[in-house]
Amino acid sequence: MDDRGDIETSDVGGVLERNGSSFYEDKELVGAREPLLRKVTTNNTSQIAIVGANLCPIESLDYEIVENDLFKQDWRSRKKTQIFQYIALKWTLALLIGLATGLVGFFNNLAVENIAGFKLLLTSNFMLEQRFFEAFVVFAGCNLILAAGAALLCAYVAPSAAGSGIPEVKAYLNGVDAPSILAPSTLFVKIFGSIGGVSAGFVLGKEGPMVHTGSCIAFLLGQGGSRKYRLTCTWLRYFKNDRDRRDLITCGAAAGVAAAFRAPVGGVLFALEEAASWWRSALLWRTFFTTAVVAVVLRALIEFCRGGKCGLFGEGGLIMFDLSSSVATYSAPDLIAVIVLGVLGGLLGSLYNFFLDKILRSYSVINEKGAPFKIILTITISLLTSCCAYGLPWLAKCTPCPANIREECPTIGRSGNFKNFQCPPGHYNDLASLFLNTNDDAIRNLFSKGTYDEFYISTLFVFFGAVYFLGLVTYGIAVPSGLFIPVILAGATYGRIVGTLLGPITDLDTGLFALLGAASFLGGTMRMTVSVCVILLELTNDLLMLPLVMLVLLISKTVADSFNKGVYDQIVKMKGLPYMEAHAEPYMRNLVAGDVVSGPLITFSGVEKVGSIVHALRLTGHHAFPVVNEPPFSDAPELCGLVLRSHLLVLLKRKRFTRERVATGVIEVLRRFDAFDFAKAGAGKGVKLEDLDIQEEEMDMYVDLHPITNTSPYTVVETMSLAKAAVLFRELGLRHLCVVPKTPGRPPVAGILTRHDFMPEHILGLFPRVKSND
Amino acid sequence: MDDRGDIETSDVGGVLERNGSSFYEDKELVGAREPLLRKVTTNNTSQIAIVGANLCPIESLDYEIVENDLFKQDWRSRKKTQIFQYIALKWTLALLIGLATGLVGFFNNLAVENIAGFKLLLTSNFMLEQRFFEAFVVFAGCNLILAAGAALLCAYVAPSAAGSGIPEVKAYLNGVDAPSILAPSTLFVKIFGSIGGVSAGFVLGKEGPMVHTGSCIAFLLGQGGSRKYRLTCTWLRYFKNDRDRRDLITCGAAAGVAAAFRAPVGGVLFALEEAASWWRSALLWRTFFTTAVVAVVLRALIEFCRGGKCGLFGEGGLIMFDLSSSVATYSAPDLIAVIVLGVLGGLLGSLYNFFLDKILRSYSVINEKGAPFKIILTITISLLTSCCAYGLPWLAKCTPCPANIREECPTIGRSGNFKNFQCPPGHYNDLASLFLNTNDDAIRNLFSKGTYDEFYISTLFVFFGAVYFLGLVTYGIAVPSGLFIPVILAGATYGRIVGTLLGPITDLDTGLFALLGAASFLGGTMRMTVSVCVILLELTNDLLMLPLVMLVLLISKTVADSFNKGVYDQIVKMKGLPYMEAHAEPYMRNLVAGDVVSGPLITFSGVEKVGSIVHALRLTGHHAFPVVNEPPFSDAPELCGLVLRSHLLVLLKRKRFTRERVATGVIEVLRRFDAFDFAKAGAGKGVKLEDLDIQEEEMDMYVDLHPITNTSPYTVVETMSLAKAAVLFRELGLRHLCVVPKTPGRPPVAGILTRHDFMPEHILGLFPRVKSND
Repeated sequence: MDDRGDIETSDVGGVLERNGSSFYEDKELVGAREPLLRKVTTNNTSQIAIVGANLCPIESLDYEIVENDLFKQDWRSRKKTQIFQYIALKWTLALLIGLATGLVGFFNNLAVENIAGFKLLLTSNFMLEQRFFEAFVVFAGCNLILAAGAALLCAYVAPSAAGSGIPEVKAYLNGVDAPSILAPSTLFVKIFGSIGGVSAGFVLGKEGPMVHTGSCIAFLLGQGGSRKYRLTCTWLRYFKNDRDRRDLITCGAAAGVAAAFRAPVGGVLFALEEAASWWRSALLWRTFFTTAVVAVVLRALIEFCRGGKCGLFGEGGLIMFDLSSSVATYSAPDLIAVIVLGVLGGLLGSLYNFFLDKILRSYSVINEKGAPFKIILTITISLLTSCCAYGLPWLAKCTPCPANIREECPTIGRSGNFKNFQCPPGHYNDLASLFLNTNDDAIRNLFSKGTYDEFYISTLFVFFGAVYFLGLVTYGIAVPSGLFIPVILAGATYGRIVGTLLGPITDLDTGLFALLGAASFLGGTMRMTVSVCVILLELTNDLLMLPLVMLVLLISKTVADSFNKGVYDQIVKMKGLPYMEAHAEPYMRNLVAGDVVSGPLITFSGVEKVGSIVHALRLTGHHAFPVVNEPPFSDAPELCGLVLRSHLLVLLKRKRFTRERVATGVIEVLRRFDAFDFAKAGAGKGVKLEDLDIQEEEMDMYVDLHPITNTSPYTVVETMSLAKAAVLFRELGLRHLCVVPKTPGRPPVAGILTRHDFMPEHILGLFPRVKSND
Repeated sequence: MDDRGDIETSDVGGVLERNGSSFYEDKELVGAREPLLRKVTTNNTSQIAIVGANLCPIESLDYEIVENDLFKQDWRSRKKTQIFQYIALKWTLALLIGLATGLVGFFNNLAVENIAGFKLLLTSNFMLEQRFFEAFVVFAGCNLILAAGAALLCAYVAPSAAGSGIPEVKAYLNGVDAPSILAPSTLFVKIFGSIGGVSAGFVLGKEGPMVHTGSCIAFLLGQGGSRKYRLTCTWLRYFKNDRDRRDLITCGAAAGVAAAFRAPVGGVLFALEEAASWWRSALLWRTFFTTAVVAVVLRALIEFCRGGKCGLFGEGGLIMFDLSSSVATYSAPDLIAVIVLGVLGGLLGSLYNFFLDKILRSYSVINEKGAPFKIILTITISLLTSCCAYGLPWLAKCTPCPANIREECPTIGRSGNFKNFQCPPGHYNDLASLFLNTNDDAIRNLFSKGTYDEFYISTLFVFFGAVYFLGLVTYGIAVPSGLFIPVILAGATYGRIVGTLLGPITDLDTGLFALLGAASFLGGTMRMTVSVCVILLELTNDLLMLPLVMLVLLISKTVADSFNKGVYDQIVKMKGLPYMEAHAEPYMRNLVAGDVVSGPLITFSGVEKVGSIVHALRLTGHHAFPVVNEPPFSDAPELCGLVLRSHLLVLLKRKRFTRERVATGVIEVLRRFDAFDFAKAGAGKGVKLEDLDIQEEEMDMYVDLHPITNTSPYTVVETMSLAKAAVLFRELGLRHLCVVPKTPGRPPVAGILTRHDFMPEHILGLFPRVKSND
């Protein structure tokens, strides 16, 4: 099986438990350095920590399996069945994630189409009776109620459910676990808040929230449910390690995109290009499986809903905006148009990112004042959106329905291409067709082919301005809000404007121009290439446009990259998440690892006094401590390894202390602990310092740390270039990196590098001049 | 720009120059350990090697830039324009690779269709005149001449051009540079040999060779041409480092797939999933650009050839096997059929790999005997193929042409669905329609929709057997041969068999069954998932089949993976290329780094005697030597860094020696050497040991190694688990990994790990018991 790759996990670990708290800033030196009574064997991995891994095959290499001869046989016999169990579980989980995300995606779709459809139906009924004011009240009222509901959920139940969620998922997959970002409450709010937000007619999408939802589902399933809500599943405890969790969440993110766009391959590529920081072939395969399941679920449910069985749920198949039958022949002038679109998309996209950053910073001032302010802001934006959507169409002229079309015109009471609005029968209001519709239907209208004359150019300009502006002001409010749909809407609109302007000299359909416009704006804001390209292909089923879409994406990304960063990177940075970039910054080459470690360092002896450990744990928030063996019990002071805070807490909780300074050894610990005791607990579930109840007399007793010490930590010499240390840290996905001195005879460990030590804020704080140099 | 990521290159380096020769097997201890006259600053990256990197911004971090204050300003001012130049060059090269590969791909296509078309035309003319024996002689003769021509090229000009080339490219991208695998002669033979091989009617494809061709083009362009053939370009010397070369070759491989299948997204995914060992986001984008260029070039040329301007070059658009208009509605029984196909594909695929391995091993016995034997083997297989292709159709019955079809029937003189062969007018021979056609057309026939009755089931069985067998025996001959087409042919055939058998109970078209069959067999042999899926989508333009294709691929890969490895991995292993897997083997966890390093070690002092260096270079083939500073000139013996053989040779060639043991320092070296002197030379172009002309009296002089020493090598402690060392080595793409002792006071470096030390053969040789344990 190809899955062997997953079992030899690297020590890619390092999910910070709480943002910020694992920063290794030593305030005081604890660490009694007294002799050990028994020398622990060196040059052997056999005296290893039992942690998590010895009873199940999913150990992180940082905490290796017990390989004492005593336990070898036992472990081996258990291994076979457990590997099988593990692989079966992994695929079962992928299947479950796919099923659940597919169901949620469909449910979201169904709910939105029914709620928004009902709202629009009601409004248009009033319009038909010429009761325009009542129509507005109904329209704005429905929007307001839905928006307020979503905002209430977001503000009071799960504040972290607001926004897109993609930046947080991206940061999680980079190793940053922001508080409660994947909690069950977030999942709940994300699902229902997103339905409320989209139904409320905001200029926002369900794509980001779906990615977040998929990730939450994956986290919940991987954790074996939530203990807090009494939904647990003990057989999933195999997955209580960072690496497997991260793999599951990658699958969840891919499933989210697949469910939102009905684009399975696009989902995989999105996870690869935008979400994941580490990638393996085996993961590609599993992600692919998950999104295939999503596609099958969606297809089956859409089949089931055919013929109006699901209320106002639309017809349509798996392809959301089918453009396939349009013939794409293009010539030189079209290429010039494409280049223009690309440059325009790049400029507008980077401008969008710039404004979004400013607006988010202003909003955060309001949002920080408390939940009521969040709700007021949301309500304000909702009213603004309603006014735009209902007010602006009055500016548009009524157009007679075109002859020879298969579609109903004007469409009454349902979303469609031709909205009647205030117009007499047989006429339609083209601006209302865009505004008084769900966002999906507006995009469908913009993408529609063979409808060159459907929209006036003035209409498109008004709609573009409104959507660009509303998209910007909507993102920061306390509602789950995706960025894809506003970006596609605005992009498709200006694409159609360009198409309309160039109509006389081009053979390309205006619908295809709208597609290219959407691609260019996506490239300009998101800065994704292959995944956006494939998502658009899967959305429109138009493979022949591929070269043009690729071209426009490349141009817009290049243009936009020369101004600022992608929108998700920007939000990650703004949220202060310590995201490790894939490459080292230039100024890091001027520094060495020893320059950025802060001391003094707290170290433990191999057999340490309980009091010292408790003291150190109480004083600092550090997540790892070096363990040092000293002469005369080792030849020289030597670094034995690293011990994790969480493991220390588990060890101390069980109170197996000795009065004498003796090494009790691995066997003793194995007898008393189950490996799963040391497995990584779910968020907020591990043993806490307050849970310890150490008596005064126990403080003077000793505990042997060797069994729980990781004896093979990755190390760098203190004269190692910081850039190279950063590459090592990032590529291996470490959480702690030991810095050892170059010259022997000094203490055997000079410090520990954590993620925060590589952050520009930290380094530039230490070396202010560095900034001016680069 | 996103490209900053490329400038902070990691020391991902390590392309072995000659397979095997860099294995660090020390025979003798050289290394005089005498005091230095000047202590070199420690704890500072500033006393660094100037190597390659200081004058251009593309330095490998292993060889960092000079950061002495003297040079800082100078370097900084140069940096800006050079970074711009570098980025511009990178994109220009991607463009050129795309253009060149697109042109070569089209030329290949054009040549094959004309040559093979002419051959088939000639044959069918004789057939029409009932001169069956002459027809056979012409058919077999043409095949023989083409095959012999290709074999002659392969056997005498470039033996490494035989076979697919994908395994070699995969190994190169993993860091293994097999001799002459990307040489210009290989490129030449690959292009023309592939045309000959495909035209000769062998059951082989042009896809693997196109990947290899694309890689060769990328290598040639990145090298700035070939000095041997006097095609050089000095302005490309920026790219004389491993990392940029590897990036270019990744682009080339993707361009090859894009050109072969006209599948740009598939090409990117192929490079990602199968070819590349290290992947970065920036690379995704560049690869994407390259394949987009290929698509545009191909499309433009195909447009140009419309209307018979290019001889027998077919009509067809960018989509090779268009299935788009077929309606894909499928129900439960179809899903069962899909599962059956998946299992079947997995079984047949793993069996194919098994037999291929056996056949390649037997062939290698023949091929090793010399070029004439290679040619005889090729001729034998060519005759066998001709006999099958011409003989087997006689077994088939003549079928009356179906009424109501738009196509010509029987088709005379050109490739088509309905071959006349020996049949009377108005009839066609269905087996001949498959055999006496180009492979592309045979696939097109198998994929054709709405042709349920076209092929008898007996015909399909005969064809399947013949293609499966011929595909196996053809691969090892001395002709550039891709595996995709034989696999698609055989897969499509049994897919169609299943479709025909299930015809009464399924709604799915037999053409779609053929597609699913091809997918299942591809999954079973190649073990790729997403890339095969996208390639098939781009080949057939049928997005609605996506869920079924995904399902069938997943099943067949799972089934096949339980038997053996993918075909390319198998060939890599069989060729003895030291490929580093992405994960560590289980037994590596039982070992530590110190267990596998072989000693004694040759080290140099910071200022070393010329004689010792020459002696060490002469005695060993090692590519790197540790440099050690010793007391009293450093506090204790300490590892100063690593020095590369190639840099030592450059240093010795210039003969800047001193009579005294003094450190001349960086400035001296900077004055005398251009950074490009140390840049990595192209294959076979660097300074060789024989080029040195050291006089006897110079042997006793000294040379300062500090300026060319990499002072920040990655190190591991000797007690580090071998599995973790392997992860470090692989993830960072290292070439040498220093092993340092755990306890100070011993020599400061215990050994050097190279790629070969992680190979199972080496480790299992050291520890035979390990194998039995795992």
